[in-house]
This record gives sequence, structure tokens and C-alpha cells, in this order.
Amino acid sequence: MNKVNLAIGIHNHQPVGNFDFVFEEAYQKAYVPFLELLERHPKIHITLHYTGILFKWLKEHKPGFIPRLKKLVDAGQIEMMSGGFYEPIMSVIPYRDKIGQIKKLTDFIKTETGYSARGMWLAERIWEPHLAKPCAEAGAKYVVLDDSHFKNAGLKNEELLGYYITEEEGCTLCLFPITEMLRYTIPFQPPEKTIEYLRSIAEKGEDRLVVFADDGEKFGIWPGTYEHCYEKGWLESFFQELEANADWINLIHLSEVLEQTPPLGRIYLPAASYREMMEWAMPTTAIHQYDKFENILKEQDLHDKYKVFVRGGFWRNFMVKYPESNNMHKKMMHVSQKLAQLEAAHGNDNKFKQAQDHLWAGQCNCPYWHGVFGGLYLPHLRFAIYRELIQAENLLDEIERSPEEQRRGWLDCQVKDFDADDAEELLASNSKMNLYFSPQNGGSLFEWDFKPKAINLLDTLARREESYHEELKQLSHQSINEGQNPKEGVPSIHEMTVTKEEGLQNLLFYDWYRRTSLLDHFLDQKTSLLNFSRCQYQEAGDFVNTAYEYSFESNDKIMIVKLWRYGNVRSGSKLIPVYLEKKISLKRAEPEFKIDYVIKNLTESKHSFWFGSEFDFALLAGDAPDRYFVFPGHTLEDARLRSMGEIANAKEVQLKDEWLGISVSVKVDGPATFWRFPIETVSQSESGFERVYQSSVVFPNWKFDLESNETWQNRLVLRVDEL
Amino acid sequence: MNKVNLAIGIHNHQPVGNFDFVFEEAYQKAYVPFLELLERHPKIHITLHYTGILFKWLKEHKPGFIPRLKKLVDAGQIEMMSGGFYEPIMSVIPYRDKIGQIKKLTDFIKTETGYSARGMWLAERIWEPHLAKPCAEAGAKYVVLDDSHFKNAGLKNEELLGYYITEEEGCTLCLFPITEMLRYTIPFQPPEKTIEYLRSIAEKGEDRLVVFADDGEKFGIWPGTYEHCYEKGWLESFFQELEANADWINLIHLSEVLEQTPPLGRIYLPAASYREMMEWAMPTTAIHQYDKFENILKEQDLHDKYKVFVRGGFWRNFMVKYPESNNMHKKMMHVSQKLAQLEAAHGNDNKFKQAQDHLWAGQCNCPYWHGVFGGLYLPHLRFAIYRELIQAENLLDEIERSPEEQRRGWLDCQVKDFDADDAEELLASNSKMNLYFSPQNGGSLFEWDFKPKAINLLDTLARREESYHEELKQLSHQSINEGQNPKEGVPSIHEMTVTKEEGLQNLLFYDWYRRTSLLDHFLDQKTSLLNFSRCQYQEAGDFVNTAYEYSFESNDKIMIVKLWRYGNVRSGSKLIPVYLEKKISLKRAEPEFKIDYVIKNLTESKHSFWFGSEFDFALLAGDAPDRYFVFPGHTLEDARLRSMGEIANAKEVQLKDEWLGISVSVKVDGPATFWRFPIETVSQSESGFERVYQSSVVFPNWKFDLESNETWQNRLVLRVDEL
Repeated sequence: MNKVNLAIGIHNHQPVGNFDFVFEEAYQKAYVPFLELLERHPKIHITLHYTGILFKWLKEHKPGFIPRLKKLVDAGQIEMMSGGFYEPIMSVIPYRDKIGQIKKLTDFIKTETGYSARGMWLAERIWEPHLAKPCAEAGAKYVVLDDSHFKNAGLKNEELLGYYITEEEGCTLCLFPITEMLRYTIPFQPPEKTIEYLRSIAEKGEDRLVVFADDGEKFGIWPGTYEHCYEKGWLESFFQELEANADWINLIHLSEVLEQTPPLGRIYLPAASYREMMEWAMPTTAIHQYDKFENILKEQDLHDKYKVFVRGGFWRNFMVKYPESNNMHKKMMHVSQKLAQLEAAHGNDNKFKQAQDHLWAGQCNCPYWHGVFGGLYLPHLRFAIYRELIQAENLLDEIERSPEEQRRGWLDCQVKDFDADDAEELLASNSKMNLYFSPQNGGSLFEWDFKPKAINLLDTLARREESYHEELKQLSHQSINEGQNPKEGVPSIHEMTVTKEEGLQNLLFYDWYRRTSLLDHFLDQKTSLLNFSRCQYQEAGDFVNTAYEYSFESNDKIMIVKLWRYGNVRSGSKLIPVYLEKKISLKRAEPEFKIDYVIKNLTESKHSFWFGSEFDFALLAGDAPDRYFVFPGHTLEDARLRSMGEIANAKEVQLKDEWLGISVSVKVDGPATFWRFPIETVSQSESGFERVYQSSVVFPNWKFDLESNETWQNRLVLRVDEL
Repeated sequence: MNKVNLAIGIHNHQPVGNFDFVFEEAYQKAYVPFLELLERHPKIHITLHYTGILFKWLKEHKPGFIPRLKKLVDAGQIEMMSGGFYEPIMSVIPYRDKIGQIKKLTDFIKTETGYSARGMWLAERIWEPHLAKPCAEAGAKYVVLDDSHFKNAGLKNEELLGYYITEEEGCTLCLFPITEMLRYTIPFQPPEKTIEYLRSIAEKGEDRLVVFADDGEKFGIWPGTYEHCYEKGWLESFFQELEANADWINLIHLSEVLEQTPPLGRIYLPAASYREMMEWAMPTTAIHQYDKFENILKEQDLHDKYKVFVRGGFWRNFMVKYPESNNMHKKMMHVSQKLAQLEAAHGNDNKFKQAQDHLWAGQCNCPYWHGVFGGLYLPHLRFAIYRELIQAENLLDEIERSPEEQRRGWLDCQVKDFDADDAEELLASNSKMNLYFSPQNGGSLFEWDFKPKAINLLDTLARREESYHEELKQLSHQSINEGQNPKEGVPSIHEMTVTKEEGLQNLLFYDWYRRTSLLDHFLDQKTSLLNFSRCQYQEAGDFVNTAYEYSFESNDKIMIVKLWRYGNVRSGSKLIPVYLEKKISLKRAEPEFKIDYVIKNLTESKHSFWFGSEFDFALLAGDAPDRYFVFPGHTLEDARLRSMGEIANAKEVQLKDEWLGISVSVKVDGPATFWRFPIETVSQSESGFERVYQSSVVFPNWKFDLESNETWQNRLVLRVDEL
């Protein structure tokens, strides 16, 4: 019997900002039992990757874990793999951060385990051809990628039993193809399936290499897998099978492969990730088309043969599909650029290094995209990204601002194409807040950072059609039943459809604009709180998503940003020309800004208007007792942040979040009707479809008549305080 | 009727090293008539791109041309487009060269026409996502790409009637999608087809943009197109149609579009090129599969609907498919790195700038790949690349070497992974030659540069199976018949199959190793000159393509590179262990090197051997009276470089090339049988299948017996002289 080399790589990761109980559960159900199993099976040689995030948590909360790991490393059983410390999508972070993140994890591993890691895990295996250079420059000798990447370059299965070498600007990097088939057999099929597959490889030639590399959470955390892998002993059996066949299955570290055998050849891989990811990165309508095409090919038995030519989209387009992902990314780029500018003068300051670490933590990939995991849909993960980035900015402020400024506060306004849409945004800030305005998109406010708490108060997500909503609409409700597995093994998460709550299909409303703030709506009489909240009303004005003109001025004490537009409001079949102006003013050190609205009827006759200004506050939990609305002078039947309701003739609303320790208030000079309603999304996660509270809309609105050339004026005051 | 904006972009290009008569013909049949037509149609506003190569030729040979162009530019009729001066594949050249090449063309255009170009043509529309940064940094505001690039990201046809904006590390770049359909209707379908298409776009909405951009050679140079476009007046009619419909077809410059309308949105495009290019970049077997798949989809009417998900390979893999392309590319990288290292100290020297210009000329894309054009298969284009690169090196030598070294010569040997295969190569040089050895691949010599003439004497190409050979084998010979067009218009070059010579299918032999030199062959008795020349013999040794050990030593006067291998020679069913050593020596300033061969029988018994050392000399023309073989003391019946024959008991062969002014000689101490035969490839070009002479193999070989532990020794002397 020919020998076959099997390299097993396990990638363990938890996102920045994940709940502590999730870390704890993953520790108890995946990381510890896996390590214990390895300790009992010293012949099972594997390559392990822990992201820096997880390592930091382990070091702090489970001080015994890394020393246990080190023993296996010292014994030569385990090879450690590096990667970006905070698991960023390597291709979309700046060059200096690429290098820095990899070196940070390599250094950590060296310090904690004494091991000099030669390989790196590439987050989500998102490859772009220019990555060979920064990876190599950061010291990596190899990266593991999906075999589909290689097939996209025209290689066949039988050409993937080894590794290749690639190059960029003279830097070389070795690339290992991960066998896709094993991603589905381990641990979802009986161990013999994997052994059979290895036998089929061994039969074809001597000393070929098969690489399995996948998420460690597949062993214990994914639904049903703890019972399957440990209670029912799948992993124990698998390891026993490997040991029983040790005469022909040679477990090998990836770095040993590099030492022992030359590459199979040279290769250049296009921008790619695993097949599912490339599908998710497409617009929803394209996903529908793609699914149809795949089904046709499967029905005709063409899929297996020709799927190498069938390809989805490109990871970076998550930033197009979800402007909220783009917002995070461009905020990250903004902070990284500031940092890079300060490097020459302050690179060795402690604060600079802390800021850099916060920036890198803010590059953690999980909330930048969405596929089978919640990702972008999970507010606590986005919250963590903004917290890290704002903390980085705060530290840079401390470096950059004079003691005088730090005492008295300051005012600053930068005009730049922040979000890469070829239009300018206004980035206003004082010592307490950042206020980012987009003249191009309705003169809206798309980010309001409260610096003392490092929170972006507007970090919400619009409700969008997702390809899987189709499935939800058709789903007759079924509940998860982990005990009974319909097939052998447990279903992979790509095969399951489960809802965590009944009636989710009734929550599928889609927003036609991004849920930012300071959005100027004109309504008609058919509009109700209900249809407005569902985005199923008719907008009467053309002030949302359209371009405003802008100016700003500032003296030492006050800054005024002026946004205005000449637009139209529809009334029956007529268009009424209207001038709308909003003058935002803020002071040096106040966590507050005022908005002076002017609306002018530009026609020769009198007209009635129904106008409101929309704010979307993202305070993480819609249904918690310590998070609630207060309307001073009013008692609310339901004050939860996800409550829906109307308060007439009010002058103030407050949103209290005792957990975050903040209170956000919207005051109006002229009394308004305040609508409030939640934005709740329906998204898929590895454990099924779920409703997620994203934010609470506060919508003060007014009905008024204006004579020819008459103006309506009002002042709004927005403020955030620490509780 | 709604208006539609039509932007026409024409890209004119000739490769570095193309024959002067080709430039002249293209000038007469394409560039001049097109310009004349524009002069007669002042309302036809278009965007023009000429590569720097063509501009330089025009400036030198047709001094009136650019001033005529300038008039149309001044009149606002023409927008000029920049790009890489020498039309490199932007993604595979070093960063500093990317910037430098773009700025050079922009500066040239500014100087010659006064126009500040804002857009750039990207050679072969080969996009990689990280290109946004260097393009933007070099001053480009936009690039034109194929619509297929955008569809690969999941966009639909109706979403491509405008432009998008992309970003990399904070740099933004606008991207225009070229409508694929118009690449086939213009000029290959009657003008009305294009008008009809534009009408269908106009009907769907106001002010949409349609971009046509393609090669200018399509109008006059591609087979049949001069007659079609000018003699039969296709272009005149097309322009008249555009003028006649000027009330709704608005001809617009691409830069005007940027000024007048915002982008349709943000986009990130994967690594891509036009569909055909992505197919050509795949291995031949994958192309066969891809074609089959496409045919199945077409038969089932699925292709049009789903082709956006069907994709071929990745441009950079031409360097994998053709090691000869990789050789040029890595030589280019090698020279670019040397140049970059000298920049700080010598960046302002005239010689440095000249060297840089030669380097950039050596980046011209045409011979780095092969598709429907000859490209890599054309020796004169590869010759030009090496000439430019060696000239650059010569100038860097002049900068770097001391006067003493320049007078006396020098010796140098660098050990590096030159070709990015994870193995080390030896780059030996003296003041007259570079000798590049690959221990890993048979201890071969893969580049021999003769510096005084700037020629790589080994620049040949192996014979490989191409996907279109299948077609050739099946082809009942048809000849080109330009007068009778089977369909309306003329066939596009993607639709034609023509052979330029009969019997080409009888030349389809494939090499199992790359045709480098100093290759150590052991033959068996069944081998003949004929089957050896066709690569249809059985190699008896294991010394070709396998790893040699190496060492080198050098003193002030002589350098010795030693390559050796313990291998085996098959004799019947037995394997005879053999030690082979070759000691290469060269002096400081001699265009000559010696090879001392030692072959030792490591067995206990006597054996017979048939050994030969292969050299492949590439001297551009196989059939010219001023290029021929000389065997001193022998008269050859056929001395052409593509002649095949055997001379027994000879001690020297010379290859004379009076046109290049060089003589290459191979001398042997112990008389040999000299075989000679040509390497001729069969490739496709835009005008049909053609036979191309690549090089002449010189194969001195010896039959000898060796007793146990006995050695055979011989000395070869290789030399090149100027005639």
C-alpha cells in the first residue's frame, strides 16, 4: 500500500466583541475537549491556529490552557500557525496593518509557546494575488487555501495533491490546497468515509498529500456537533482510525511538507474564497440566478464535472451590498490613515501602540460580511468594531491635541470622500463627538460617535431582501431536532433550515434607503405609523437619498454646518417646490448638537405639509428592562426600545441604556408628534433564521400649512449623556 | 425619444520589436485612414489611445501625424487617453514601474498635444483589485474595462449603463464598462445593428451611457477589415448613421461623463479580463473542458442567461503555462530590482533613466502571453524584450562597475530563486555574458545573454499542445477568401479558421521538457535523429528535468560552476547508476565558456553508453540566406538554420547570423556526431495557423563503453563572436 500524507489544520476563532458566554461555551465544548483528545492521542500530529482574539481571551480567562498547548508543541505533536492577529480580511486592510497583524500573532505564538510559526491562516481564505508580498514580508512561508481557488486557475483534482508556489513582485509564498470533500466528510460523515477517500488517493500514487483544514468550532459548537463529536465519540473514532492505519496514513505538519518535498509547480490564483462565500458576496438577485443555474447543472449531472468554471462574486462587494459594512471599512481606513500619519513622530509612544492595537482589533472580519453566520447582522459585533476604532481615535486625539485643547475641547471639520462614492462627506467633530454628514445622500447624518463611551449611536442596519428569505416564505415551520439525524452523521450547516421563532416571514419588510439619521421625510395623508415603520408608504418629498448643498464655518467656539436643498413635495398630482435648510451647530466640548430647520414654500399659493426628521438609534437590545424610552411628562405602556407607538404634542424623548450607561435625548422647540418603532431584521445564522433588533427609529413629525414664501422653522437638540 | 450617450474609445498599439513594415502597414491601412475620416467628420467625438511605442514610431517616422491629431484635440473633437507607455500588463510589473509607465505616457501626451489625459487604457483590460491605487497615484481618474468584469461581480446588463467607482487603500478610481455586444457589431455587423442596439437602450431610460472601446487595428489591419471599413465604406456609413441620429445619440468623451454625471455606485471587481483571455490563460486540457461546457450551455440555450457565472482562468498563469513567459517576466523583475536598488544613488543619471526606459520597453505585454494573436510564439517579439532588458542591464553595469572592471572585465555569480520555483538558480556573468543555470532542472543553462549585442541566444519556445491543434487536426484545408463573406459584414477573428500553409497538422510534435540548453541526454539504440527531433524517443537517462547538486568558486580571473548528479541510465530492463559532472568555466571578459564533462560508470561491470548534450540556439530566422550552419571541413547540402542533418566525426559547428552580426560556435575536444534540427511550432495568429521557426538544436553526441568505475571525459567550448 502506498503511503499518503495527511495534514490536518484546525482554525479556532471567536470574533472581537463576542459575548463572554460564547467564548466560555466554545471553550468548554470545543477547545478543551479537542485539546484533551489530542493529549490522549500523541500520535495525532496536527497544525493548530488560534486567532489572537481567542489567544488573548484564553490567556486571561484560562491561564492553564496555553501551557497545556505548549507541551504538545514542545513534544512536536502540534505545529502552530500564524495569521492576522485579529483575523482581518487581509486583502482589504492597509499594507502596514497586514504586516503588523501577522507579525503580532507570530510574536505572540513565539513568546507563549516558543514556536516559530512558518504558516498562516488567511481569514475566510480570501485570497487576492497581491497578498503573496505582504504575507512573505511578514515572514510567512505558506498559506492554506481552498482547492476551488486552484481549480479556478484550471488545475484538476489530481494535480492538487501537494502544494504550489506563487509570487508577487519577487516575493514567494507556498500555497496548500484544502480538499473540499473533506470539509463535508469531517465530522459530518462516518470516519471510514475519510479513510476510504485517503485510500483512493494512496492507490493512485506514492506519498501524495491531502490537506484538511477547517474551523475548530465544527467540533463541538456548530449545532449538534458536541453530542456528535464527543458524546457519541466521532472524533475519538476518527483518531483511532487514523492510528489504526498509521502504516499508510502519515500525519504530517504543513511545515514538514515544505521541508521534505518541493512544490508541485508555480501557480497564480485569482481573487477567490470558498465557493459559498463567493456566492454570498453577490447581489441577492444574482444569487437567485446562480442558484437556479446550479440546480439546472445538478439536475443534468453536469455540476460535478463543470462546477470549476461556475463562479460567484468577489468578497469586497459585501461593502457594496451592505453600505453599513462599507461604513465600518471606511471608518477603519480613516483611522488607519490618521495613525500612519502620526507614525513617524509618535510610532514609539505607548499610546500610539495602544491605538494601533485598537485599530487592528477593529479590523476583525466577522461583522464586515454576512453568509451562513450572522456576521454583519449582529449588532454586538458591529458595536465592538466601532468601539475599537473610536478608542483608537481617542488615543490619537490624546497624542495629537495640545493640553489646552484637551482641557477646553476643540472643533474640527474635514471634507473628504470618506466612503469612496466620489462625493464629499463632512466629518465634523468636537472633543466629545464625531458627526459625519453626507450631503450627497439626503444631507444625512450617518455616524454619531460618542467618544467618552466609544459608541457609534447610529450603528444600525437597513432591512434588505436576502436570497434565503425566499426559503423562509416557503417554509412550513420545522424546529431543530438534534437527536434525530436524518442522514448518517449530522447535517452540515449548509444543509439546514431552521427558524428560531415562528412567524418570521411576517417581519420581511425592506427599506428603500439606508437607515441613517437626519433624514427629511415628507408624508402624505395615507401614511400611518404602521406603514411608515414597514417602509410601505409613499414618500411625498424628494429629500431622502438626494443631494444637498453644503457649507460649514467655524470659529474657536462654535461650528455651523449648513445643508440645504431645493426640492419638491408631491401633493396629489402636483409637485410643490420647497426649500429645506438644516443648520447644525456644535460647541467645543459639548456632547450635543442643535439643528435649526427652515422649510419654505416656494410656490405662489398655500399648501399643507407633513414633515418629519428621522433618527435611528442603535442601542443593542430592544427588549431589556434596563433599556427603555422616556417621554418626560408621559407614561408609556410599553417603553422597551423595540416598542412601537405615537406620542402627540411632545417636546422630548429620551432613550436610556443603563447597561451602556448612556442617555440619548431628542428635544424639539415646537412640539411634535413622536413616532417610535424598531428596525428588526430577519437573517440566517448557523443555528437558523432569527429576528435581530437593530435600532429604534425616533421620528418627530409636524403637520403645518405654509402660505406662499412662508417658512416653517424649528429647532431640534440632540444630546447624549453618561448615566 | 430619449437621448443616449455613446462614448467611443479606440486603442492603437504595436508591440515593441514589431517589424517596421508592420508599423508602416498599420499606419497606411488603419491609423491614417481613421484620422482622415475623423477630420472629415468633426462631429464624431471620440476618445483615442495610442501606446507610447506607437507614438514614438509616429513621431520619428511620420512627423506630420501627431500635429494633425493635436488639431482635433485642440478642437475638442478628441480626448486623449493615457496608459502604460509600453503597454505592460499593469498587474505584473513592479509598483514603481506601474506609476512610472503611466506618468511617462501622460507626460508625452501633454508635451505633444497639450492635453492632460485623465483616463487610461489598461492593457488587455487585465484588472486586479489592487490596481486602483497605483493608477490613481499616477494621476488616472478612470479606466475602461469589459462589462464581463462587472457581471462577474454580479451586476446585470441594465446596471452597466454608466460608470462605477472603486477604491483601494483610500485611492479611488472610476471604471467604465465596455459593452461586449458592440465589440462584435463594430465593425463586423452593418452599422444599423449598432444603432438598433442604442435605440433599445434609449427606450429604457434617459441619458444612459453606452461605451464602445476596442483595438484600432480592427479598422484596417485585421484580415479583410481594410476593404470592409474603407474600400466598402463601413466606417463612413457608421459615422453618417451617428450624425444622422445626432438628435438622440450624444457622442461624449469619457472624461465628460465624469464631469457631468455621478457614478452609478461603488464596485469592486475581481481579477478579470475579457472572456476569451480568461479562457486562453487556462491549461490546454481545461480549455477543452471549458469549450465542451460552453457548447452544452449553448445547445440548451442556457449560455446567454448564465454565462456571467461561467469563467475561465487568470492571466498570470500564462507564466505557468509557458515557462518561457515566466523566464522573460522574472528576467524583467530581476532587472527592475537591480534598477530600484541603484535609484537612491543614481536616479538622476542619464544612464539610469535610459536603463529605466529600456526596462519599461521590456515590459511590453505582447510576447508574455498567447491567445488569438501570435504573441509569445513570435521570436522577434521575445527577442525585443530580451534586447531591451539586456540593454538596461548593460547600462546599469556601466553605472555600477568601476572603470577598472569595465576595462578588465569582471566575474560575478548570484545564487537566487530567479524563476520563483522555490529552488535556487545560479546567475553567472562576466562583462560579456550572462549564463543562467538551473541546478533543479537538469543542471541546465536556460539563458545565455551576449551583452555586446544584447541577445539571449537561448530564447526559444518548446512545442506544446494548444487547444486549437485539435481543430487543425480536423481541418480539411480551406484557404482565406476575403472577397466572399459568409455572413453579413466580415467574420470577427474569433470566428475564423485559416491555415497559412498546408500540412501543418504534420508538424504537431510536443516536447516533454523545456527546450533550454546543456541538457544531458542518454539515448538507446532505437533513437534516431528523426524521432529525437520529434521528441518521440525514449529517454534512457534521468538527467533531464531532475535536480543536480551545484557549487561554484571564483577568483579574480576565472569562475567555475560545477553541476553534478548521481543518476541512472536504463539499459534494457536494468538501471545503471551513473555519475555525471559538468564543470563550467568562464573568464572575466571572454564571450566564451568551457564545459568539462565527466561521466562515470558506477557499476561493477562494463556498459555501453550513448550520450549527448543538447543546445538550442534561437537566431530568429530558419530560412534566410544570411543565417546558416558551418561545419569546418564539411560542406552541407542544406545549411539553413532549419535544416535537419547529421555530421559524424566532427569537432566544431558554427551558427552564423550575418543579419544579427554574430557567430555562435560549439567545439568539442573529442570528435562527436553532431545532430542538428529545428524547433518549429504551430500556432494561431489573427490571420490563421502558422509554422514558426523557434530555434536550431545542436546535439553533439557520443557512443562509448565504460568499464566498472571508468570515466568518460570531454571538453566543450561555447563561444559567440561578433561578425
